[in-house]
Amino acid sequence: MPYVNIKVTDEGVTKEQKAKLIKGVTDLLQEVLDKDPNTTFVVINEVALEDWGIGGLQVDEYRKLHSS
Amino acid sequence: MPYVNIKVTDEGVTKEQKAKLIKGVTDLLQEVLDKDPNTTFVVINEVALEDWGIGGLQVDEYRKLHSS
Amino acid sequence: MPYVNIKVTDEGVTKEQKAKLIKGVTDLLQEVLDKDPNTTFVVINEVALEDWGIGGLQVDEYRKLHSS
Amino acid sequence: MPYVNIKVTDEGVTKEQKAKLIKGVTDLLQEVLDKDPNTTFVVINEVALEDWGIGGLQVDEYRKLHSS
Amino acid sequence: MPYVNIKVTDEGVTKEQKAKLIKGVTDLLQEVLDKDPNTTFVVINEVALEDWGIGGLQVDEYRKLHSS
Amino acid sequence: MPYVNIKVTDEGVTKEQKAKLIKGVTDLLQEVLDKDPNTTFVVINEVALEDWGIGGLQVDEYRKLHSS
Repeated sequence: MPYVNIKVTDEGVTKEQKAKLIKGVTDLLQEVLDKDPNTTFVVINEVALEDWGIGGLQVDEYRKLHSS
Repeated sequence: MPYVNIKVTDEGVTKEQKAKLIKGVTDLLQEVLDKDPNTTFVVINEVALEDWGIGGLQVDEYRKLHSS
Repeated sequence: MPYVNIKVTDEGVTKEQKAKLIKGVTDLLQEVLDKDPNTTFVVINEVALEDWGIGGLQVDEYRKLHSS
Repeated sequence: MPYVNIKVTDEGVTKEQKAKLIKGVTDLLQEVLDKDPNTTFVVINEVALEDWGIGGLQVDEYRKLHSS
Repeated sequence: MPYVNIKVTDEGVTKEQKAKLIKGVTDLLQEVLDKDPNTTFVVINEVALEDWGIGGLQVDEYRKLHSS
Repeated sequence: MPYVNIKVTDEGVTKEQKAKLIKGVTDLLQEVLDKDPNTTFVVINEVALEDWGIGGLQVDEYRKLHSS
């Protein structure tokens, strides 16, 4: 009965992409650990760019710096 | 000083229902483990149906399949 | 299909106490939100005193200060 | 820069199985959302059977009931 | 490669304040544990007052009680 | 009443270093957001190298690859 939480930046992830993530993770847990999909939960959180930090900076600032 | 996180699907949970969850969990921790309510935190997250997966499907798709 | 995570300090919580927490939270979610117990997950984490901070101190130091 | 947390019951998951979970989730996020593996974190937690509840029971009790 | 999650009540935290939290936590992990900022993630969540409980009450109710 | 969770790899973090992390994060939240230390919780988790993935690999494998 796995529980999986996926956090990604909030940048227009579609319902179809979320469905693929849910299906993909659930299949993976069945293949690798023989977990029953009916007791596998997946929760996706989209996080605003200003709420995610990397390199000591918010993601939008970090990207400006690293793309220049 | 317990910390409790409750995740439920986002389907119109009222402020009153949330108050009952917070009161109920805090009381439970006091009864079972003698925890002080003043240092018991409860955080509730409501998760959109398309962000919650079970059985390899988003909740709305899963329900269609299992109610038919 | 709720997911509940309970974090408490690691101070000899027994299997029976954990069973009461799991039963109590699951019942609460059924009463307040009519959630099906069969798709209600509860995960308990016990956290060492040195890994939990409050008031800027580890729990054992905090307690010394506040019990004197 | 996704962050993924996988929680499974603590039942002898091997290092190789964990490597497969990490590789599989990282590949999935690259395929579906074009996420860079170098900024994809995966954290696995194994949870003792007495610390995981489903159906209002600890997993070991739940399994006894449902296998009989 | 630390991962830090900061949850605060949703009360008008500005982008600049979030930037300071991200910078501050990342610096702290570098100072104390020599962690590389480029693999330090910080995720901030703002939680509505009605979704956060303390003392068995939602934060707004708790504050009314304790400020009187 | 902030809640902060810090996850780091399990590599001999001392009690003193944990105390510094707890003090540092609590001070930061007081400085930036005027949060009361007495209702600021910090929970530290140490994660085994085989349970943490980056770049699609477990941390120990990732380091071998990137230090060569």
